[in-house]
Amino acid sequence: MRIFQLAAPGIDNLVRTEQKDGTCEPGPGEICVRLRAASLNFHDYAVVAGFIPVAPNRIPLSDAAGEVIACGGDVTAFAPGDRVMTTFYPAWQDGRPAPHLTRLITGDRNDGYARDKVCAPESWFTKAPAGYSHEEAATLPCAALTAWRSLIEEGRLKSGDTVLVQGTGGVSLFAVQLAKNAGARVIATSSSDAKLARAQALGADHVINYRTDPQWGVTAKEIIGGEGVDHVIEVGGPQTLGQSIAACRVGGHIALIGVLTGVSGDVPTAEIFKSQLKISGIGVGNRRQQQDMVRALEASDIRPVIDRAFDLDDIQDAFRHLESQTHFGKIVLTF
Amino acid sequence: MRIFQLAAPGIDNLVRTEQKDGTCEPGPGEICVRLRAASLNFHDYAVVAGFIPVAPNRIPLSDAAGEVIACGGDVTAFAPGDRVMTTFYPAWQDGRPAPHLTRLITGDRNDGYARDKVCAPESWFTKAPAGYSHEEAATLPCAALTAWRSLIEEGRLKSGDTVLVQGTGGVSLFAVQLAKNAGARVIATSSSDAKLARAQALGADHVINYRTDPQWGVTAKEIIGGEGVDHVIEVGGPQTLGQSIAACRVGGHIALIGVLTGVSGDVPTAEIFKSQLKISGIGVGNRRQQQDMVRALEASDIRPVIDRAFDLDDIQDAFRHLESQTHFGKIVLTF
Amino acid sequence: MRIFQLAAPGIDNLVRTEQKDGTCEPGPGEICVRLRAASLNFHDYAVVAGFIPVAPNRIPLSDAAGEVIACGGDVTAFAPGDRVMTTFYPAWQDGRPAPHLTRLITGDRNDGYARDKVCAPESWFTKAPAGYSHEEAATLPCAALTAWRSLIEEGRLKSGDTVLVQGTGGVSLFAVQLAKNAGARVIATSSSDAKLARAQALGADHVINYRTDPQWGVTAKEIIGGEGVDHVIEVGGPQTLGQSIAACRVGGHIALIGVLTGVSGDVPTAEIFKSQLKISGIGVGNRRQQQDMVRALEASDIRPVIDRAFDLDDIQDAFRHLESQTHFGKIVLTF
Amino acid sequence: MRIFQLAAPGIDNLVRTEQKDGTCEPGPGEICVRLRAASLNFHDYAVVAGFIPVAPNRIPLSDAAGEVIACGGDVTAFAPGDRVMTTFYPAWQDGRPAPHLTRLITGDRNDGYARDKVCAPESWFTKAPAGYSHEEAATLPCAALTAWRSLIEEGRLKSGDTVLVQGTGGVSLFAVQLAKNAGARVIATSSSDAKLARAQALGADHVINYRTDPQWGVTAKEIIGGEGVDHVIEVGGPQTLGQSIAACRVGGHIALIGVLTGVSGDVPTAEIFKSQLKISGIGVGNRRQQQDMVRALEASDIRPVIDRAFDLDDIQDAFRHLESQTHFGKIVLTF
Repeated sequence: MRIFQLAAPGIDNLVRTEQKDGTCEPGPGEICVRLRAASLNFHDYAVVAGFIPVAPNRIPLSDAAGEVIACGGDVTAFAPGDRVMTTFYPAWQDGRPAPHLTRLITGDRNDGYARDKVCAPESWFTKAPAGYSHEEAATLPCAALTAWRSLIEEGRLKSGDTVLVQGTGGVSLFAVQLAKNAGARVIATSSSDAKLARAQALGADHVINYRTDPQWGVTAKEIIGGEGVDHVIEVGGPQTLGQSIAACRVGGHIALIGVLTGVSGDVPTAEIFKSQLKISGIGVGNRRQQQDMVRALEASDIRPVIDRAFDLDDIQDAFRHLESQTHFGKIVLTF
Repeated sequence: MRIFQLAAPGIDNLVRTEQKDGTCEPGPGEICVRLRAASLNFHDYAVVAGFIPVAPNRIPLSDAAGEVIACGGDVTAFAPGDRVMTTFYPAWQDGRPAPHLTRLITGDRNDGYARDKVCAPESWFTKAPAGYSHEEAATLPCAALTAWRSLIEEGRLKSGDTVLVQGTGGVSLFAVQLAKNAGARVIATSSSDAKLARAQALGADHVINYRTDPQWGVTAKEIIGGEGVDHVIEVGGPQTLGQSIAACRVGGHIALIGVLTGVSGDVPTAEIFKSQLKISGIGVGNRRQQQDMVRALEASDIRPVIDRAFDLDDIQDAFRHLESQTHFGKIVLTF
Repeated sequence: MRIFQLAAPGIDNLVRTEQKDGTCEPGPGEICVRLRAASLNFHDYAVVAGFIPVAPNRIPLSDAAGEVIACGGDVTAFAPGDRVMTTFYPAWQDGRPAPHLTRLITGDRNDGYARDKVCAPESWFTKAPAGYSHEEAATLPCAALTAWRSLIEEGRLKSGDTVLVQGTGGVSLFAVQLAKNAGARVIATSSSDAKLARAQALGADHVINYRTDPQWGVTAKEIIGGEGVDHVIEVGGPQTLGQSIAACRVGGHIALIGVLTGVSGDVPTAEIFKSQLKISGIGVGNRRQQQDMVRALEASDIRPVIDRAFDLDDIQDAFRHLESQTHFGKIVLTF
Repeated sequence: MRIFQLAAPGIDNLVRTEQKDGTCEPGPGEICVRLRAASLNFHDYAVVAGFIPVAPNRIPLSDAAGEVIACGGDVTAFAPGDRVMTTFYPAWQDGRPAPHLTRLITGDRNDGYARDKVCAPESWFTKAPAGYSHEEAATLPCAALTAWRSLIEEGRLKSGDTVLVQGTGGVSLFAVQLAKNAGARVIATSSSDAKLARAQALGADHVINYRTDPQWGVTAKEIIGGEGVDHVIEVGGPQTLGQSIAACRVGGHIALIGVLTGVSGDVPTAEIFKSQLKISGIGVGNRRQQQDMVRALEASDIRPVIDRAFDLDDIQDAFRHLESQTHFGKIVLTF
């Protein structure tokens, strides 16, 4: 079986090794999974590029999908042949977050899924949505669950709500799809008109080019009639938060997810107070939320947007493509 | 202008009188509305049939729609020409219910909308959904809002949830439509295969004929894979609650709305305890919830199911049609 | 070490056996606990009396406390010497209930704590409240957590709310104490004036003898000024639910816990609907809720009410005392 | 009757005029109140000092208490002789905030309570807590309700939670009292050891002098054992938010209330994201929340901390005392 390890920080240092097959024996409560696909997230890139320091020879990748090939004793949730996908925080099963639940991140604090096979506790996986390819399922654990938790769990989105989505990254595109599926209206932003056209094809009701309209938050508020939007998917951070605040209705909700524009910056705190906003810092979600999301996807027409699929052996190329920031949708690896 | 009053209990005692036009002068904070349509609810029937005693010569009907023809001073929410609809509990604007907020029911404790024109506080109305006919808007204030509050407000329905809907009355059909619009799965029941076929056409994923399958709750649980449903729209009351309880997953939610099978009866309370269910008694909803629902309808493809439209002058026939229990969808009056 | 097993249904069949010491070796993630006290719940009685069938030679008791004497590898939450208590549903760590989380009940589906020592996963325990004796800590896992979850988690009790508590059993007395500690008002009922006096000493603001006042629910509503109570701790079931419903304010909350008066009965469902009540079936709670409760107890002056302590060797007498229904507060065993 | 008007910005321009008595005739739904006391808030100071521009000759003051002397027709909530207090946002009765509900602020957008008598809709008032003096009741509408909503409504504070309170202003002292009354632990900060001693006397479990300990947020986290606090009452704004974020547990809640240190500033947004915090902008609260708070105060031993009482005629001195920032507790006016 193939294993890709990070010998040292840098995409070039992702090296392939081999491990003799058959070493994978599930212990009690464990399942052995033949991985078939993975997807790349910004978090994986941060690990590989060295922004997040990890142990030497770490196997990267948090998001993967495959099929169960063996079950250890006491396994109750899965059977051989089941199609499964991984969870981002394997220790966080349900309820509220806590340091001891979110410390473990596969492909970061422990070895990840850039390998053909893995044995791990069954609680580290959920079912993949019925009818999804492995590639499609592999796009979900980090990006889709972040969007799901932001809108559905923390935002308690209702049909008819308005959602402002920043950019066309993985979280944002899932947010467009999940919001539309729940009966909401969506405003999407991007610096590229071509990407905005694709966001519209995906369901966005309104689009704004934030390069040509730096007051995009104010514009968003006007578009929906002056009251302001109910939810913002804030992936930019300090440089975009001001416009997100400007876009919101009194009592609106901002899911603060990303750090794309930095880790701190000038924020108009008085506006948060005056508009009585709610801001939720969102770090992916727990396994029960992922199970709920799988159920929602199964009841929907949603198909993840896949930008491009690479062979696992071309993992370096895949990360370079991510680095180029030209993609629209998820970059996946096929094993 | 025409006015229909209930001279005494009984459909036959709904009598038409005339009032000179021009008496309608909106005071401060009031609007004058030219009513164009109304819909009939079981509550209206209970008033007209005498099950709910009302003052002599009461004007019945709680649900109507029309257009604003004049605005008094200080009116801020509406302008002449706006299409509006009524609210079931005009005093309950937002927040939780309380006796002083739900005491006033138009067409019951105070005069209702079986008349061509009305002057009342602007807070008694909301906008009608854009693009709806007056007849369609008139179906919403009682039945649709009850379904909305049951699923969206109290049930906090998420995409992917499963909803069991009893029968094909007004609340239940709106529940099918609102649940599907929010990305849920729906199981509908009826004693008529013909009505079940229509429920399916409306979006229901599964249907059960409760006449041929008295264990319909158990069947519903099996249909969705054994865990049980997340929500039940319980309109029957004591005779159906047992099967509703049987249908639910652990922690499931039952919206207890109706009294169609009586006001009390044998209930398996230990099962509520063992399955850790949540039961919510639901009496329509408040004005803010109606405004949220209007927004949701505007963002959706939902069209109310209208069984048949009668002219206001044929209000007696309309009530007799309601009494016959053969309708599917709402019975409306056109003014 | 001593072990008490249920050779066959019936208190007389609780037999003592010995097991050689030193067999207790904690595996990975497990701790070994020297149990020092246990408490008896109605659930334990139902097991011992045979109402709940269990496997032969089952070791009963769900609630116990003691100190950690050894920790296996990977144990992070505890260290030797820590004072701990058990959890009622060891598999339910956080989040919502589900059959696979509540199936396991110690002293029922698996062996319980009528023994001097136990090795089990660390996740089956929580810290005991600092300053509590082992006997006091042992009273908490079932009864106190049921009261906590009913009022604090499901009821979202606020200071100033009014709570109606039925009887003076374990859950009810903890409900009195937890409600008062959170700034609420409490009305307690009992058939014994002596017990009512003790409930008042514990903090109850008002008391009603339900034997002399069969309309105790109506009385409770009057006592607090006509609006009705916010919360009811309903431990009786079908025979008491009617008065609980009568006691509630519009929108009030009933925590449906017990089956003391049967498993089903005539319930005025129309009143649930008319008063827009919320009923929550409550089965104890999860481990995170127990941790929250421990923190609340540590910040409070609450001391569990212990009726009487028996030596573990006198476990039969302790169950007979429970059976006699004369106790006020918890019956504990000292090891 | 006396009336104080703001002839122009500046404390010196608060001028007394007289109005003939007997002009106060309550209309339908209105009550006439003989005001007996008022309290000063930072908001009143901002109006008087000219930071918030108001119409010429505005009567200032949002918070007052007194007794009902006459009721207009249709008044149902009050009777002559009732002791009442004002509401900060008279149009916001219940439910969520919205611009049309929070636009009206008495003593700002419309005339306030620096006068002996007022006629206004009954919905602009609530009962005062039984047993409170008029001075005590007058301290509540802005400061106490802000603390109540921050902790109880938005924060859903549970017994055992930890609350970090900044400074010893009106909101913060009420937060100490309300949190302790609900069974929480409190850490208070101040730049004055003398004020910290008084905060401790009021119930604070721990105190930190933020002048001598600029890393007071980190210290607060350590004091409670490393996990971090559950709630922060953030009245400082941009200069203090960083330490508030540092103090919080993962998933903790910050009630963002004040602008004492500016309207914008550098905020570590990545920390909000990483610690998955919830930030709520809080602007006082609605009338139903005030009614809930009154109930809670009546069930408690809480007495507002009054720094000093001035006669209404000395209103200029009272504002100068507020301006001096030396007070501990509320400054009140006695009429």
